[in-house]
Amino acid sequence: MGVGSRAIRVDACEKVTGGAKYTDDLRPANCLVAKVVRSTVANGRVKAFDLAAALAVPGVVKIVTCFDAPPFEFPTAGHPWSTETAHQDVADRRLLNERVRIWGDDIAAVIAENEVAAVRAARLVRVEYEEYPVVLTPREAMAPGAPVLHGARPDNVLAHTSFKIGEGSYEQAAAAPGLRVVEGTYETQTVQHCHIEEPVCYAYMEKGRVVVVSSTQIPHIVRRVCSQATGLPFGKIRVVKPYIGGGFGNKQEVLYEPLAAFLTMQAGGRPVEIELSREETFAFTRVRHAIDFSLKTAVRPDGRLVARRYEAYSNQGGYASHGHSIAANASNAYRHLYQDEQVLDADTYTVYTNIASGGAMRGYGIPQVNFAMEAHMDDVARAIGMDPIDLRVKNCMRQGYVDPGTGITCYTSGLLGCLDQGKKYIGWDEKRKAYANQTGNVRRGVGMAMFSYKTGVYPISLETASARLVLNQDGTAQLQMGATEIGQGADTVFTQMAAETIGFRDEDIHIVSTQDTDVTPFDTGAYASRQTYVSGMALKKTAKVFRARILDYAEYMLKRGADTMDIRESWIVDAESGERLLSMSDLAIESFYSLTNSVHITAEETNHCKSNTFSFGACFAEIEVDIPLGKIEVLDIINVHDSGMLINPALAEAQVHGGMSMGLGYALGEQLRYDAKGRPLNNNLLDYKLPTSMDTPELHAAFVETDDPSAPYGNKSLGEPPAIPVAPAIRNALLHATGVAVNSLPLNPQKLVEAFTAAGMIASWEG
Amino acid sequence: MGVGSRAIRVDACEKVTGGAKYTDDLRPANCLVAKVVRSTVANGRVKAFDLAAALAVPGVVKIVTCFDAPPFEFPTAGHPWSTETAHQDVADRRLLNERVRIWGDDIAAVIAENEVAAVRAARLVRVEYEEYPVVLTPREAMAPGAPVLHGARPDNVLAHTSFKIGEGSYEQAAAAPGLRVVEGTYETQTVQHCHIEEPVCYAYMEKGRVVVVSSTQIPHIVRRVCSQATGLPFGKIRVVKPYIGGGFGNKQEVLYEPLAAFLTMQAGGRPVEIELSREETFAFTRVRHAIDFSLKTAVRPDGRLVARRYEAYSNQGGYASHGHSIAANASNAYRHLYQDEQVLDADTYTVYTNIASGGAMRGYGIPQVNFAMEAHMDDVARAIGMDPIDLRVKNCMRQGYVDPGTGITCYTSGLLGCLDQGKKYIGWDEKRKAYANQTGNVRRGVGMAMFSYKTGVYPISLETASARLVLNQDGTAQLQMGATEIGQGADTVFTQMAAETIGFRDEDIHIVSTQDTDVTPFDTGAYASRQTYVSGMALKKTAKVFRARILDYAEYMLKRGADTMDIRESWIVDAESGERLLSMSDLAIESFYSLTNSVHITAEETNHCKSNTFSFGACFAEIEVDIPLGKIEVLDIINVHDSGMLINPALAEAQVHGGMSMGLGYALGEQLRYDAKGRPLNNNLLDYKLPTSMDTPELHAAFVETDDPSAPYGNKSLGEPPAIPVAPAIRNALLHATGVAVNSLPLNPQKLVEAFTAAGMIASWEG
Repeated sequence: MGVGSRAIRVDACEKVTGGAKYTDDLRPANCLVAKVVRSTVANGRVKAFDLAAALAVPGVVKIVTCFDAPPFEFPTAGHPWSTETAHQDVADRRLLNERVRIWGDDIAAVIAENEVAAVRAARLVRVEYEEYPVVLTPREAMAPGAPVLHGARPDNVLAHTSFKIGEGSYEQAAAAPGLRVVEGTYETQTVQHCHIEEPVCYAYMEKGRVVVVSSTQIPHIVRRVCSQATGLPFGKIRVVKPYIGGGFGNKQEVLYEPLAAFLTMQAGGRPVEIELSREETFAFTRVRHAIDFSLKTAVRPDGRLVARRYEAYSNQGGYASHGHSIAANASNAYRHLYQDEQVLDADTYTVYTNIASGGAMRGYGIPQVNFAMEAHMDDVARAIGMDPIDLRVKNCMRQGYVDPGTGITCYTSGLLGCLDQGKKYIGWDEKRKAYANQTGNVRRGVGMAMFSYKTGVYPISLETASARLVLNQDGTAQLQMGATEIGQGADTVFTQMAAETIGFRDEDIHIVSTQDTDVTPFDTGAYASRQTYVSGMALKKTAKVFRARILDYAEYMLKRGADTMDIRESWIVDAESGERLLSMSDLAIESFYSLTNSVHITAEETNHCKSNTFSFGACFAEIEVDIPLGKIEVLDIINVHDSGMLINPALAEAQVHGGMSMGLGYALGEQLRYDAKGRPLNNNLLDYKLPTSMDTPELHAAFVETDDPSAPYGNKSLGEPPAIPVAPAIRNALLHATGVAVNSLPLNPQKLVEAFTAAGMIASWEG
Repeated sequence: MGVGSRAIRVDACEKVTGGAKYTDDLRPANCLVAKVVRSTVANGRVKAFDLAAALAVPGVVKIVTCFDAPPFEFPTAGHPWSTETAHQDVADRRLLNERVRIWGDDIAAVIAENEVAAVRAARLVRVEYEEYPVVLTPREAMAPGAPVLHGARPDNVLAHTSFKIGEGSYEQAAAAPGLRVVEGTYETQTVQHCHIEEPVCYAYMEKGRVVVVSSTQIPHIVRRVCSQATGLPFGKIRVVKPYIGGGFGNKQEVLYEPLAAFLTMQAGGRPVEIELSREETFAFTRVRHAIDFSLKTAVRPDGRLVARRYEAYSNQGGYASHGHSIAANASNAYRHLYQDEQVLDADTYTVYTNIASGGAMRGYGIPQVNFAMEAHMDDVARAIGMDPIDLRVKNCMRQGYVDPGTGITCYTSGLLGCLDQGKKYIGWDEKRKAYANQTGNVRRGVGMAMFSYKTGVYPISLETASARLVLNQDGTAQLQMGATEIGQGADTVFTQMAAETIGFRDEDIHIVSTQDTDVTPFDTGAYASRQTYVSGMALKKTAKVFRARILDYAEYMLKRGADTMDIRESWIVDAESGERLLSMSDLAIESFYSLTNSVHITAEETNHCKSNTFSFGACFAEIEVDIPLGKIEVLDIINVHDSGMLINPALAEAQVHGGMSMGLGYALGEQLRYDAKGRPLNNNLLDYKLPTSMDTPELHAAFVETDDPSAPYGNKSLGEPPAIPVAPAIRNALLHATGVAVNSLPLNPQKLVEAFTAAGMIASWEG
């Protein structure tokens, strides 16, 4: 009961029995269907349409093209927004684009009575283009003479940031005598979120307003972006978020909601649904940025880091989406986890190209930088002959650390405890020795990686959240959170938090799972692993006010001071003896129906969160590698996390398992590939190698609980972190097993066979 | 703009274009249909069912009988509820009744995949009864040896109340010398509300809770009664009220929502809809009580009322529904409008019979008593040779009156002004003379009647309401009212009130029209003409808090005292000069996204209303009566109302027109009739003579505005009053035209021909 218990998910039964209603389950009977007409060039301009054949398809209601769409440029990132122009997201696209920048760009939309008609007509739209050369990588896009994607960025660099910690240059520091210099380049690939429920939304009009029902992580932000994209004021837009089947950041983007809002206005207010196929989801929503890193480190022989140089190039794709913030977040994490004696010098570039736009995805840049950083740390350790963990312990963030860039403070750290647990679990010391000098085609290795992760986005951006509690006549309470359940268990942990702070039993809290911007308290939504921390603070504040109002009413009813009483297990009790004085249902029914003092007890509070804190963790993996086959089998794997106090250990474990699974796909198989024209080659679940349950080893999760003083319940971020350290841990285990450093993800058979061949471990098949 | 303007209804466009969504529009795709199996005896007991044939109908999912239903007895009245047992509504029915008391009583329910299957199966259910004699009127039911309907009331009298104002008995006072005594009996008939949308609801389960979507006036009360009927706690029930197509009190009753809630539980949580046909609505929902009155009055020759005796018998039908409160309300109104020099002695009986249960209907007993009282006043005036208006003016309630029974105070009275306006409009003095001595078959007359009406139910019952306001980012506001729009224009006047008090333009208030007990502030609902008064107070209180919070934020932004500023036309202005300082949208967007002070501005307040006030009005009618045809034509008619200050004069007029139309049907044609077995004879819109637009004369409405100090905006009740005085005004015009007093409603041709025959004005057709 309350915080810390392994409470069963409040939506478990609904979801298991199929009772839970998702967006498409709710669409009205008379709903129209829209299909987006997509460009067949990855870079160019639409010159003209011929709609005759498409319009002749029976069931077609209307076709809207980029020449009919509103002229507003708008941003799509699920960020809180800023009233300062300089901090606003980049507005670089329209509802339908005449200037196309990716293959499959949105250029028109067919509205039809049914999906068959919409799809048929969309295929029959004839388009004439002016075509430009295509650039697929930051290197190509930054080359002289490259085609310019957005006029405002003639060098295709969306943003470049630099920072330097310490005095002097890296080169000066690294040139000092007695230092060992290690250099490496590390590449991460383009992957996709692969949430079960594809992006889907429908919109209709009521009372001159547009209602959008959408599978989104961020209903209040969808409202804002719909306003920006359509020109309707905020108040004329209502966004409803039902249950959603996963998001992982892809639904922290405002994808097709504004278009649906526009299309219902074009269809006289009739409902219009846009549901993407899996193929469309892969190719035309968002991906994890492929980032290439170039790292240099000067280290003392004893392992003390002296100076580091960091350079990163992030492949943004065609549109800004979350913009530079993901690459910037990566560079900040490079600064946080280890500190240098003298200098860290960093440059980060986010570059437009003609592939799918990079956006938010679980970890928000950190899985990429963590692969590079933690691979590099093993390379450094190997260069100076030091145990990789010893090297890490020597240089890592300690409690009390204050980030010079943001002021984010390390109030608590269980990182060393995580390392201890992980070492012990995997048998580190023995196996590092045992596997040191293997021969033969099949070899084993153990590897690890660790990370730090902040909690929410303060102070880089706004953190604000509200909650509302309403007492029911039976002494239970309705809880409304602006924060969203997206499968991660938010509704369950909020229920536990409310019960804990008010003094109710868990089952006496009824959380309203659907967010509806007309009535739901404001919250920016589910991202940045922020909700238990930021929204949890708002809930705690609200619950305290609610509790005080209940005790006030108890004072009125029982004629004794509110401060002599407490609420426990949904009873008013004597604060000292615990004696039960009044049941909550008796109090509640009186509060409603009293003829002398009727009060509807509610509470609603905002928390403007102005703190942040670090969580930590590490992954330890033991693998077996078949050298001729280039195949890695994960024999054992564990993630050990310091996410502060756990609100619900069962849900925490499930969260870790999910993240590890995502990390394994990132490490071993997933990659979205493009041909030279920018066309995706494997945008489906057959060709895109997402691990299935058959590919997944037993996953182990463990925790080191710390009690963070800045948090509402001692808790720190947990949602994203589990995905972070898996890939570098496996890469480092591979290095341990074979001595071969593979610095490019994914570690798939092709990559490994090439690496082993280059290392002379297998004969080249070409030879 | 704001209060007092003729603002267009906020839902006008939705309702005219068909965009407004009603309950049946919203039902989910997989919704099951339930049909109630109804008893074919009006008094008896179900012995057994044979379901074999019914269960064999394809598409039947389940049949639930009274032997399977929960054992809970529950009340159905839409009353606020009381925590004191003595004041609770009478719980005298179950979800399905084994002991049946009306023809068509609910004895079982068929759940099927579609309506055809449900109806077919319901017809095939075989039932064995034990049958008892039937009683149709209070006289029959109170006769010795009558069958007992409810064991707890062996005399079939649900309740009997007496009161006496003044000293001594009526008989003593009336026996004094020099007084004229007038006696009369007056009968009112059974009528039905005839709202356009028939009762409809559907229920389904989510997260172990039952959700009921219903066309109701009282969603929060439906929640309570569903709890009582099913045994589920309040918190496990959620009630949603979409737009509704009229209610007039019939939807102030909890009709089939609890059964729908039970049936979805029986169907594994799948949605189950119950929609009544027009025939079912007439026969098995609620009707206006037929009340018979016996009145005696002792009056001085100068018109001063000395003593009155009042006896009323109300036909309750099979179940208690609103119980005695309607007949009691009638007797109170008899006490309010006129005061006697010496004594008023009253007895009121509410009696169970085997016809449809009487329930709430616009006016709540007052149209009945007003017919009797105002007919009787004309009889008294005629007896002493006095102008009926002069008689009324001499004895009627004046400002400052305090009801000795309830303490309800007359703070303002525009009654005399209403009489003046009405007299002038209809040409009273001239026509009373001109039509005095007519002969011939076609004659004309003018008549009038007046009334008082209280506003809400305090202090007889609880008056409590809440509202919530939420600021949007564009400087508009969401308004949530627990009070319900039921076609009367509530959403529009609440919008005006909020705009008025906050200082916003009307269009900057977005009212949430749907009530959802999970998130909507508590309010008992639409009845008793209470909402603009009681809920209006809650809204005003909330709007003041909201306004203060906005000004607080303006103080923060503009660095000047909140008390030096005001809000006008949605701008922060200098309180003195009116100079515009800050737009609401600039304030709002800063309040959300400020990096220094993010506050989501909302307000939510309860108003426990502990006041009441009287509204007044009068109807003046000129009629032409064709004596041999027994036919009345209304040549001209006006209602003049004192309902305090009008929030929206256009809506007020529409409200009066609607009420007058209802009053005309009551006066001239409507009557639900039964055969000797208790079977309704005309439960359809062909045989039940509801006036159509072709039957309706031009309707005129006028107002005398008073500024009531007890009210939030000077306003008093208006919703129900317009229906009250029409029937007696026409009856009195008939008396004026012909000299014949017809004391039984409706004044239809049969009734008139009988009366004229008895009066010797037409030869008996039997003769």
